[in-house]
Amino acid sequence: MGEKERDESQDANRIAVSRRGFLKAGAGLGAIAATGLALDLSKTDAEVAAPAQKPFPLKGYSLPLTPKGQSSIADAPPWHYGGDCLRLTFKADEKKVAALIPPPLEMGPNPGQGAVVFQEWVSVSEARPDLAFINPERAIYRECLVTLGCQYKGEPGNFVPYIWVDNDFTLARGFIQGYPKKLGRIYLTRLHELTPKIGGRQVGAKVKGICDVNAQRIIECSMTFTRPSEPSELPSARKSYLMRHFPSIEDPTRPVVHELTVPIVSNVKIKDVWGGDAQIKFFESPFEEVADLGPIEAQGAFFYSRGMTVSGGRVIHKYV
Amino acid sequence: MGEKERDESQDANRIAVSRRGFLKAGAGLGAIAATGLALDLSKTDAEVAAPAQKPFPLKGYSLPLTPKGQSSIADAPPWHYGGDCLRLTFKADEKKVAALIPPPLEMGPNPGQGAVVFQEWVSVSEARPDLAFINPERAIYRECLVTLGCQYKGEPGNFVPYIWVDNDFTLARGFIQGYPKKLGRIYLTRLHELTPKIGGRQVGAKVKGICDVNAQRIIECSMTFTRPSEPSELPSARKSYLMRHFPSIEDPTRPVVHELTVPIVSNVKIKDVWGGDAQIKFFESPFEEVADLGPIEAQGAFFYSRGMTVSGGRVIHKYV
Amino acid sequence: MGEKERDESQDANRIAVSRRGFLKAGAGLGAIAATGLALDLSKTDAEVAAPAQKPFPLKGYSLPLTPKGQSSIADAPPWHYGGDCLRLTFKADEKKVAALIPPPLEMGPNPGQGAVVFQEWVSVSEARPDLAFINPERAIYRECLVTLGCQYKGEPGNFVPYIWVDNDFTLARGFIQGYPKKLGRIYLTRLHELTPKIGGRQVGAKVKGICDVNAQRIIECSMTFTRPSEPSELPSARKSYLMRHFPSIEDPTRPVVHELTVPIVSNVKIKDVWGGDAQIKFFESPFEEVADLGPIEAQGAFFYSRGMTVSGGRVIHKYV
Amino acid sequence: MGEKERDESQDANRIAVSRRGFLKAGAGLGAIAATGLALDLSKTDAEVAAPAQKPFPLKGYSLPLTPKGQSSIADAPPWHYGGDCLRLTFKADEKKVAALIPPPLEMGPNPGQGAVVFQEWVSVSEARPDLAFINPERAIYRECLVTLGCQYKGEPGNFVPYIWVDNDFTLARGFIQGYPKKLGRIYLTRLHELTPKIGGRQVGAKVKGICDVNAQRIIECSMTFTRPSEPSELPSARKSYLMRHFPSIEDPTRPVVHELTVPIVSNVKIKDVWGGDAQIKFFESPFEEVADLGPIEAQGAFFYSRGMTVSGGRVIHKYV
Repeated sequence: MGEKERDESQDANRIAVSRRGFLKAGAGLGAIAATGLALDLSKTDAEVAAPAQKPFPLKGYSLPLTPKGQSSIADAPPWHYGGDCLRLTFKADEKKVAALIPPPLEMGPNPGQGAVVFQEWVSVSEARPDLAFINPERAIYRECLVTLGCQYKGEPGNFVPYIWVDNDFTLARGFIQGYPKKLGRIYLTRLHELTPKIGGRQVGAKVKGICDVNAQRIIECSMTFTRPSEPSELPSARKSYLMRHFPSIEDPTRPVVHELTVPIVSNVKIKDVWGGDAQIKFFESPFEEVADLGPIEAQGAFFYSRGMTVSGGRVIHKYV
Repeated sequence: MGEKERDESQDANRIAVSRRGFLKAGAGLGAIAATGLALDLSKTDAEVAAPAQKPFPLKGYSLPLTPKGQSSIADAPPWHYGGDCLRLTFKADEKKVAALIPPPLEMGPNPGQGAVVFQEWVSVSEARPDLAFINPERAIYRECLVTLGCQYKGEPGNFVPYIWVDNDFTLARGFIQGYPKKLGRIYLTRLHELTPKIGGRQVGAKVKGICDVNAQRIIECSMTFTRPSEPSELPSARKSYLMRHFPSIEDPTRPVVHELTVPIVSNVKIKDVWGGDAQIKFFESPFEEVADLGPIEAQGAFFYSRGMTVSGGRVIHKYV
Repeated sequence: MGEKERDESQDANRIAVSRRGFLKAGAGLGAIAATGLALDLSKTDAEVAAPAQKPFPLKGYSLPLTPKGQSSIADAPPWHYGGDCLRLTFKADEKKVAALIPPPLEMGPNPGQGAVVFQEWVSVSEARPDLAFINPERAIYRECLVTLGCQYKGEPGNFVPYIWVDNDFTLARGFIQGYPKKLGRIYLTRLHELTPKIGGRQVGAKVKGICDVNAQRIIECSMTFTRPSEPSELPSARKSYLMRHFPSIEDPTRPVVHELTVPIVSNVKIKDVWGGDAQIKFFESPFEEVADLGPIEAQGAFFYSRGMTVSGGRVIHKYV
Repeated sequence: MGEKERDESQDANRIAVSRRGFLKAGAGLGAIAATGLALDLSKTDAEVAAPAQKPFPLKGYSLPLTPKGQSSIADAPPWHYGGDCLRLTFKADEKKVAALIPPPLEMGPNPGQGAVVFQEWVSVSEARPDLAFINPERAIYRECLVTLGCQYKGEPGNFVPYIWVDNDFTLARGFIQGYPKKLGRIYLTRLHELTPKIGGRQVGAKVKGICDVNAQRIIECSMTFTRPSEPSELPSARKSYLMRHFPSIEDPTRPVVHELTVPIVSNVKIKDVWGGDAQIKFFESPFEEVADLGPIEAQGAFFYSRGMTVSGGRVIHKYV
């Protein structure tokens, strides 16, 4: 077989590897495996034959790839984050939550448990920490997400079935990590201690989060501050389980990437935590399915500031 | 004279008053004045004739006027504000500054002095302090403005020739107060102490402000923090001199309102002041004239938090 | 009396005129009137005394006023318009419609009759017809408005109680003409004959209009095309009655401008008219009152292209 | 070896296949190959062992995957498009164009040839043709792209190094097809035959396209209509060569998908073609590299309406 399987391959769901190379080695496969050598299945015939090939001339962590490599929609991790967060916990019908959790993830130890998060982030990449200064729009965004308690091999965590953001670099990071991000208009009350009648975080302060998608309100949450709180009270110290998925352009039924990942998070800081009463509303829509989770029982809310670094992720399960 | 001057009057620049009433009283005008009675020139014939008229049925501080009176684009003052501010001072050519200052305002004691301000505000009205909670978008906005030092009858202050905002209630408040607001996209670096690589206000922190109007960058400023500072160091403790102006719909050459006002400001609080180095750029545009102020010499910058209440304004000079 | 009444006048609702001048002339007021001389009440003492004053150095139809006069948020009329329109007629409870119509306007010959209009406009000013070419964003906008049938002195017309737009120059034109414009996100299906599955205007085509204000859907309308139609079938060939209103900055209860106007419209062209079935929904909101018009009975819909010129307006009634 | 290589695999760039299965079969690999059996390397141990597994419960062409499968950011192709297009051709320095073209694509027969396209699209998916009616925002977008002439195995075509859009479903379709889309604000003059002073497509008409990215104008083009034209005159009847690329979340240096594709386009219609003079400007930016193509020589411009269907794509070359 020649190079043909690398060019104009019909089945995008099968990553073509050099079968020729495999078959040549076939007889000795058992022998090779026994030596403990790592089989590198990613090299092409050409690469095997001419390892000193010219490197690919265009650079970047993500598209577009360019000569300078500075146009990528998202830079490579690590990514640094800091900002204010409104987190509201809820309990939903177990069956409805289960319907959203992809096996082999399983229902969590607290069946039906979930949360809605409204977050304002300032975020830069390790590669270009000056982003927030060179062009502020490139470093600021808001997001609204739903998380559902689950577990993997007995280890509890949160799966994210729905999430909306309002900036493109974060949308792209989402595809790359496994957050199913879409664009929405996200609003979150901004408290400021110097604004008469509003003030800062204090007993009686009220915040609201609204997520509007294509001219339709989808999620609306509110919190009334009742008490100062501690980071230890926050329910969300669990790992996230995310699902990466990238469609084929040749066969719509067979994604070329479909796997579960866990983000590598470090450097987590939490500050100024307040607890309070929560209200959560999900709205019906011909396009968004988040209202199918309802009716839900809002349990409580926290408002706090947090910072962290995400250095990448680990793949824990592959579907393809 | 009959009602004719009230209906279908051709000259919109003349506020029609009941001449009939005046002329009737004409002979006794001197006498009336001598008694100290306040001449109320705003009443119509109808109102004078039938003071027990039904009140106007639609309510609101500004359009639209409605039965409930809760749809106005802007509520009545007092208006409360709180937020973070980047203020950069500059010196420009005196003649260019003078060309923008409307007489009888005069050049200030520091000829050529001006400032650019980038501000993130949280703002509510006294009438509806819950705005920020009911619908956050209605209480948050950013603005970018240019101020020029001037004086009025020997009292120094700042005139505002240019200002852009990104929300409608503040645009309307602008027309009402005398800020010549237009819509723009305003960006300001957001510092956050928990964001690795960015942090909060500290020596070495950098912020940038960008004002983009109709897909064209008009103003770009930046500040590098060099030292903590005090409210007393801020150059901007002067009053603002604003120019209200409302065109006629009948005669484009004769506005029906044209006057100078001073806002009534109270309850000013300033906190967390930092000083630093400033850079200011104005960009040419076929529509915006701010670049005509240049070239300018950026002098310094301050970043701080402030809050205040605006209760209305005083008219100090009328052109019509 | 001295100049005092011109400076720092307390009552913004009363247009200060030179009382001194009036009182001086007071005794002869009757005489003056009898001569037929037009009393010009807009001149200040200064202007009367020194008619050869320097002209006001800043130019523009609306703020900001500048040396070049090219920064105004809105240019002077005439204004030219062209674009596609979705117009849906409805019948509402007469009392609810009457509650929105400002006297002396009265209920129209078809009590309870109203319409919702979704419009995409391309618009330039006579002064700068190149706007659409120099900077397209400055010449394009969408609007959504509600009109209510009424009459003035027996002449039928439409009053506009509610209207949302998505660009600033049109918001300003609204304040100036008497359209109570606020900002919203307006969406209207765009038909295109070359889009497979959608096509252009034809039997069976469907269009939807959505008006979203501050992350809340306020109005939603749809039309299914059933038949080609003629301009003569359109119900909207009536004049508009608009209400100009400009608040005082000194006294929130007494606007300085409050009057009814009629826009001067010419050069109307209508083309490609289609008729069809209509659906109209108004949604409740804590801020918008349009849903108070309901429930309504949608009667019919038209989709067409139109162009026109607005040269200004005539004031037909003054409240102050 | 057990299932371990499927779970927690460290090297995301290597598609894990069931080595156990391979090794079992190892001895007979040559024999298997000789029989001509297609080796399906995508099945997991579990799938091989229990082919009657429950199907994956979440549905959708792209994330998010849900029970109903109607929340995907992008539906599966076919995708239908219709709209107006401004296409300007240019000649740039050959070396600069070559620097952007990914091997094995090569410089085209017209070295240095390229184009800028501003396009307003109405687009729906075959799966949900009613999108434009249910929620207009979901079916309308504008894009601005740069294309460069190239060839692959002697067949001329256009590579797309840069492209900006203003809606999320098209951004996602871009990642899936190989268009390196990012978000921008795209403006294009809208002609309308009924707008006085502007009119429709005619000799002398002028249109401008502006692409603004993060508050910075990146591309600005204009065309003055000089003559009616024919579809046959359009230079762009060539296929597009696109580059799909999806990063790893584990190893930033090794994308899991990197391949060249050709979109499958059908049902192309072109109408109302006009030709004219062109002007193209690229602007420098700290983030966008399009200005590195310059200086360029604008050659000509066309404005026309077009429609088409994209049914997917073919992979023609794989890098990994």
